[in-house]
Amino acid sequence: MIEFEGFKPVYGGVCAAKGFTAGAVRAGIKASSQKDDLALIYCVKKCAAAAVYTQNKVKAAPVTLTQKHLANGKAQAIIANSGNANACTTNGGEIAELMCALTAESLKLSQEDVIVASTGVIGQCLPPEPFEKNIPYLASRLSEVGSTDACKAIMTTDTRVKEIAFEFTLGENVCNIGGISKGSGMIHPNMATMLAFITTDVSISSKMLQKALCEANDVSYSRISVDGDCSTNDMCCVLASGLSGNEEITEQTADYETFFNALCAVMINLARESARDGEGATKLIECAVLNAPSEEAASLISKAVISSSLVKTAIFAADANWGRILCAAGYSGAEFNPQKVSVKIVSENGSVTVCENGAGADYCEEMAHEVLLADEITIIIDLNEADAELNQAIAWGCDLTYDYVKINAEYRT
Amino acid sequence: MIEFEGFKPVYGGVCAAKGFTAGAVRAGIKASSQKDDLALIYCVKKCAAAAVYTQNKVKAAPVTLTQKHLANGKAQAIIANSGNANACTTNGGEIAELMCALTAESLKLSQEDVIVASTGVIGQCLPPEPFEKNIPYLASRLSEVGSTDACKAIMTTDTRVKEIAFEFTLGENVCNIGGISKGSGMIHPNMATMLAFITTDVSISSKMLQKALCEANDVSYSRISVDGDCSTNDMCCVLASGLSGNEEITEQTADYETFFNALCAVMINLARESARDGEGATKLIECAVLNAPSEEAASLISKAVISSSLVKTAIFAADANWGRILCAAGYSGAEFNPQKVSVKIVSENGSVTVCENGAGADYCEEMAHEVLLADEITIIIDLNEADAELNQAIAWGCDLTYDYVKINAEYRT
Repeated sequence: MIEFEGFKPVYGGVCAAKGFTAGAVRAGIKASSQKDDLALIYCVKKCAAAAVYTQNKVKAAPVTLTQKHLANGKAQAIIANSGNANACTTNGGEIAELMCALTAESLKLSQEDVIVASTGVIGQCLPPEPFEKNIPYLASRLSEVGSTDACKAIMTTDTRVKEIAFEFTLGENVCNIGGISKGSGMIHPNMATMLAFITTDVSISSKMLQKALCEANDVSYSRISVDGDCSTNDMCCVLASGLSGNEEITEQTADYETFFNALCAVMINLARESARDGEGATKLIECAVLNAPSEEAASLISKAVISSSLVKTAIFAADANWGRILCAAGYSGAEFNPQKVSVKIVSENGSVTVCENGAGADYCEEMAHEVLLADEITIIIDLNEADAELNQAIAWGCDLTYDYVKINAEYRT
Repeated sequence: MIEFEGFKPVYGGVCAAKGFTAGAVRAGIKASSQKDDLALIYCVKKCAAAAVYTQNKVKAAPVTLTQKHLANGKAQAIIANSGNANACTTNGGEIAELMCALTAESLKLSQEDVIVASTGVIGQCLPPEPFEKNIPYLASRLSEVGSTDACKAIMTTDTRVKEIAFEFTLGENVCNIGGISKGSGMIHPNMATMLAFITTDVSISSKMLQKALCEANDVSYSRISVDGDCSTNDMCCVLASGLSGNEEITEQTADYETFFNALCAVMINLARESARDGEGATKLIECAVLNAPSEEAASLISKAVISSSLVKTAIFAADANWGRILCAAGYSGAEFNPQKVSVKIVSENGSVTVCENGAGADYCEEMAHEVLLADEITIIIDLNEADAELNQAIAWGCDLTYDYVKINAEYRT
């Protein structure tokens, strides 16, 4: 976990904030699976709500319906299933509507106040029965300790629960923010690249909530890549109940900045965990680009490096093949001077400078190998532009392994 | 091989055209390798010459030097080594200059008339000795049957020789065009994505030759991807000796069109062979997009599909997971109507329509599996836009396998 000053890690995930409960059930959406596959998150009060969605032209039915429901910036519940993406089918719209209708009826809400999400295989029709049978039951079993269950229910190829929450203060009000997310394949930096549900008891207008979400997304989910594929179903949404009692945030005040930092703390940690849990991954790769001629250049280079198949396979092998890092920087589209670049590799095992002034540094391959054997690797690329200290960016990815191929070759079997 | 009407396949590769000889030698550039690693192609006459280069910001020294030498559109010899990319080192410029100087001296040419190229590992200094010892000897041993040897000498992780030549006529003149190329990793659609050397005895101005090369590149090397990485060393160049006796092509005449088609025939076949020989690949994947709203949309979609790690792993497993194909089309950046899309998979084992109107078609998974077991797979995506028959594009890639990971994890060991 990356710690942020002023934000205290707490338990509870999406139930840490006042007013929220959650739960999960096994609805049997994928016959072969024994795990829970349907999650529900609910707030006692209608919330300000905001979301970012996949940029894919082919959007799953639940994405389109949620966009419609969130047009007024309000929501009160989230219903989400794994095991089937409800995308590219003939009955997708009907099923997404049904999921919202059943949730609304069970919780006595308006259908428009329900957010719906799905994740799993694309192109297989979802039957209505699993939802008809299970949503009313699930709605009756929500609890304040249900966050982890909800998180497990939205997992697909994920191997780790991704859940976090922080406590912080706005003036004299103690506030909470927490989230869960899933996603370890079909992940690429292009807006919201997974499912992520975030809740807070801060009082904030829908407009400022959307602004904070978009900006936090730029430095979190938009900075990770597992395999370069951007899914049809990605969605990250945040619900703010206002129950912490702070004065509503409606402008870019100091309170807004504090809330924005809290949101970044949640989203950066969840995004980083998704990169670490990339399909087949054995290592988390963090790439920090410093002293860039522009922030855009730093962002482009950091994303290209963590997305490169050749960098990813080299790191899997703990091989300091830094030429591939320079090569990826070179095709990133960023403007920079290759002759000024230095590259350093850092882990808990030590650090080694592998490249200086765009050429190989005098380093020991065995030492570099040792550094790369750790399971969290940081690549620091210094572009050494004068007076450019503030132009920097970080992106997160993972290594490319035999198991990535195995998982994705056998996904439907 | 894709056959093109009016162009007769002939033997000889880069030596098929009148005036050209070639050869290769083992210079010992990579100590651990026993294969030839230095190739030379020579023409008895100074040629019109054109080239396209990597778009990578980090360019190898031989790329920069060749760009300088070709400023006048003339060249007479090509010297190329494998085993070391001569990129990102402190002495790169000197070594590239030395390679040209030794070649020029041995063949009694001007240094500016030599094209130089390197391929192999990035960031390791090349010593001068292998060139000093071997270029004079190599220059004395050139032959009219040396094309295949030259091709083998530029191979790195390639497993197949990529060599082709055609005979055709311009008026009453019999002309020849042929080429060799290498490249099976670090390959992605972005201009010239490998080393390719093409020779012809057609008489054509440097300006029209450059135009033809750029346009042919757009439908050949720019339409293949192996792993999404675009190298620091890519270069495709063509030399035209004019010895076939045709009237020099200086404008966009019928002769120009014929020559352009001949160049496409060579480049499309070589590019396709590089995709087939992608690192670790077991299958060639061809994606044809038909009836698109624009040619750009067709091109974007075809490239996104053959570049998708998820499509590539599914095809490795012979799994007709067409949702991933639609997903890749969706994030390609192309404008199209997902509801109108149909997808058909074709091979020598048969054909199966897997998607119609953006949703799953009624097909047999076993039949689709059978179709996908072949080693050449064609994915036909019909966007079904009315009156759009002419907007189409084809791209080529390969499957993603355990061996891709193995080859690239162990590349430097």
